[in-house]
Amino acid sequence: MARVSIDTWAPPAFRPIMMLVGGMLLALSAAMLIPAAFDLFARNEDWRAFALSSAVTAAFGAGLVSISRTKLAGGLTLRQAFVLTPLTWLTVALFAALPLYFSDYAQLRDSFTNAFFEAVSGLTTTGATVIVGLQDAPPGVLIWRALLQWMGGIGIIATAIAILPALGVGGMQLFRTESSDRSEKVLPRVREIATAIVSLYLGFTALCAVAYWLAGMTPFDALAHALTTISTAGFSTHDNSLGNWTTPAVHWIAIVGMLAGAVPFVLYVRLFQGQLDTLRNSQVRVLFGFLAVVIALMSLWLVSSERYELGDAIRHAAMNVVSVVTTTGFASTDYGAWGNVAVGVFFGLMFVGGCTGSTAGGVKIFRYEVMARLLHSHFLHLLYPRGVFPRSYAGRALPDDVVASVVVFFSLFFVCYSVITIVLMAFDLDFLTSASAAVSALSNVGPGLGPIIGPAGTFGPLPDPVKWVLAFAMLLGRLELFTVLILFMPRFWRG
Amino acid sequence: MARVSIDTWAPPAFRPIMMLVGGMLLALSAAMLIPAAFDLFARNEDWRAFALSSAVTAAFGAGLVSISRTKLAGGLTLRQAFVLTPLTWLTVALFAALPLYFSDYAQLRDSFTNAFFEAVSGLTTTGATVIVGLQDAPPGVLIWRALLQWMGGIGIIATAIAILPALGVGGMQLFRTESSDRSEKVLPRVREIATAIVSLYLGFTALCAVAYWLAGMTPFDALAHALTTISTAGFSTHDNSLGNWTTPAVHWIAIVGMLAGAVPFVLYVRLFQGQLDTLRNSQVRVLFGFLAVVIALMSLWLVSSERYELGDAIRHAAMNVVSVVTTTGFASTDYGAWGNVAVGVFFGLMFVGGCTGSTAGGVKIFRYEVMARLLHSHFLHLLYPRGVFPRSYAGRALPDDVVASVVVFFSLFFVCYSVITIVLMAFDLDFLTSASAAVSALSNVGPGLGPIIGPAGTFGPLPDPVKWVLAFAMLLGRLELFTVLILFMPRFWRG
Ligand SMILES: [K+]
Ligand SMILES: [K+]
Repeated sequence: MARVSIDTWAPPAFRPIMMLVGGMLLALSAAMLIPAAFDLFARNEDWRAFALSSAVTAAFGAGLVSISRTKLAGGLTLRQAFVLTPLTWLTVALFAALPLYFSDYAQLRDSFTNAFFEAVSGLTTTGATVIVGLQDAPPGVLIWRALLQWMGGIGIIATAIAILPALGVGGMQLFRTESSDRSEKVLPRVREIATAIVSLYLGFTALCAVAYWLAGMTPFDALAHALTTISTAGFSTHDNSLGNWTTPAVHWIAIVGMLAGAVPFVLYVRLFQGQLDTLRNSQVRVLFGFLAVVIALMSLWLVSSERYELGDAIRHAAMNVVSVVTTTGFASTDYGAWGNVAVGVFFGLMFVGGCTGSTAGGVKIFRYEVMARLLHSHFLHLLYPRGVFPRSYAGRALPDDVVASVVVFFSLFFVCYSVITIVLMAFDLDFLTSASAAVSALSNVGPGLGPIIGPAGTFGPLPDPVKWVLAFAMLLGRLELFTVLILFMPRFWRG
Repeated sequence: MARVSIDTWAPPAFRPIMMLVGGMLLALSAAMLIPAAFDLFARNEDWRAFALSSAVTAAFGAGLVSISRTKLAGGLTLRQAFVLTPLTWLTVALFAALPLYFSDYAQLRDSFTNAFFEAVSGLTTTGATVIVGLQDAPPGVLIWRALLQWMGGIGIIATAIAILPALGVGGMQLFRTESSDRSEKVLPRVREIATAIVSLYLGFTALCAVAYWLAGMTPFDALAHALTTISTAGFSTHDNSLGNWTTPAVHWIAIVGMLAGAVPFVLYVRLFQGQLDTLRNSQVRVLFGFLAVVIALMSLWLVSSERYELGDAIRHAAMNVVSVVTTTGFASTDYGAWGNVAVGVFFGLMFVGGCTGSTAGGVKIFRYEVMARLLHSHFLHLLYPRGVFPRSYAGRALPDDVVASVVVFFSLFFVCYSVITIVLMAFDLDFLTSASAAVSALSNVGPGLGPIIGPAGTFGPLPDPVKWVLAFAMLLGRLELFTVLILFMPRFWRG
């Protein structure tokens, strides 16, 4: 993880950025050998697409590294860090789309738009798919989609811990730790935490895969779904997602796995270090409390509207509510057919999001907590204009600049959401499809609502320009808006 | 206009509140004699309903005043002002519904829900109607609906100038003037401004009525529409609103009238006093600039989609865009049938609103200006973490507490909008109907979008509980959220 120094505002020095992007591409090219192996093993000719892409990616990566070899001793400047983050994600997504585009699989090879959409949707852990008939897709394509989501998940944890707090965007400065603080240089400690998190991530995935397998999935399905569960990402190997398995155990395993992925990963590390007060973490408690209330109400509604018996009602409510709130996007059934009120609730849930520092996307719990603090102190101030009402969060004072960052994040989120919705409607999509696609892409949920892109549908029929807009929205949301939008400020590029 | 002192936080002294509410009821009972006269003149038996209601209202008003006779020398306490505002509006709306409920008119007499909805929609200048077949409604009912909107319009100007700034809600403290400032006691000056504004309001209405008449309306239609144009309120005497008149002049008069009503009325006073720099008022310039851009784009779309010739395209675009942005709610045609992109744009426009201190509702221009200042300074701060970027508005420093108020207003607006949308969906209304009804009621626009409540529809078919929810939303939005919501804080009622 790169250290960011916010003291300097140097002219654009792209050398270190190119070197880091090149390194990422080398890692990506190595990852492409995994689906190649799967296809080889299944005697599927597609292994050539992955091998070719791996070679191309490796060549580009090696080229970038060799022409930009430099030392990162001084860390990155603020501007470099701002450029690095979206550039890395975009470049990796472009190269990740190559094997899909080169493959023999008819639904992707004919259209770079579809290949890129699928790659971005994977890497950003969104999980919206253009494919119909997943069960007939070659194993290499399926495992590559799952792998992209898994790598995207660990990538966003790293970004949220190491980069965003130092950039001070969206209130993330609240989570400045030793690993991102500009004033300290405890690199060994950073490495230690990073190693711990990656090990945990691997461990959780393995556990999840074994559990799915014991619950009745094939080893391949178990692995593919484990990769996309812990990363709260949501790609499946079947069109009807987890609805393909009727064993309740599969759904409960998914619920536990998605929740595990939506919790800040540093908390696990602290818990393993014996810091038991971690269990009282504010974000986690609010998330679980909120989920409990919504699942209870939704179960009641499902029972009272005679859609399910109590047990099934609780399972389907828990599965799909947890899926949307953690921004995973799995579905155990077509909840879009649960009636208008359910559509309204699921639409609203797409604006919630999981915890910061996890693989979950969306607005995220801590921002709602900060807004609640602001509202509370404001109403007190209205009643007692001369009173002073300090705000605090997690036992510490809540700085005004964090509140301002969070407020600006909300505003930007709603601006982006509104603009994308209207752009989609300009392509003659209906209101529910446009609005739900916009928030689903921005929050990296995956499925939308309505007749086309609902939990039982796919993004395939949408016009190509809409797919590019949504792919942009996924990156925008995944990188917490600011890091992308700031690049559109002319002043950013001036001296 | 009552002076508000924010220094005291006294125990609930309802005496002055009851006296002021009683006074309002007396004024309302006098106003009821106008529709009574119209019905008498038209030899319609409905005059009895108005006469009876007038008597009942007068009796209640006189009773309240007599049991609470007190001196207002000390002004109102903060808490009294908070209670007074929603209580007055609610009481007046309840009594204003009486003649509609007592009338012989079949669409209103059978249901107090319908009568109350129509009265609240009138008084809050919303203009959503439950009636089908307006052209057959008795003249008394039609003129009472128009009169309610006209009185509601001047009522909200008074509230926005005299009460809200002193309460410090929603950033309105930015508009503290001599008339509302706690530290000065220039009551003659207040009276002078109030008289000037009321005279202007009367004058604009008369001008508008004459213009409509000259353009071909009957004197009755001209009067009824003038009353609801200047108040940006939108009740019509025909189901197809201003689409009933095909003369372009009628639409252009409406456009000018709606714009006149959406501009802060104190600006006219200042202009008449010779302060020509008033013309550079920031809110007004942003409003007109924004309208110009949207109307131009919408006209282009109408021409390019071959719906209208250029001239008609500009007229219909201007008419309906101005109608929605100024929260009037007139329609020159069913713009809900202009295709998905138009639906998206009109939906978005309902979130804009006119200028503060006018009769227009909605979020309002100055709040967007304040948010833009916040976003701008925040992005600069991201680029230059050590820089200091003071915010200013209209040439003066923009205090942090105003920014906070505006931010809280936006949050509350979106919370209310979301909750109301989901409540409406719980009554099995579709997403577009629910969402557009919610924002239309909160912003006091009037018509919604979709098959039921679009510009060509009515709110009549909605279930009764939905009508009550929307009536509440209209009052909530009209009184700028805070003044209503604060009454739900338990602490407000404690010592
Ligand atoms: K997802
Ligand atoms: K209106």
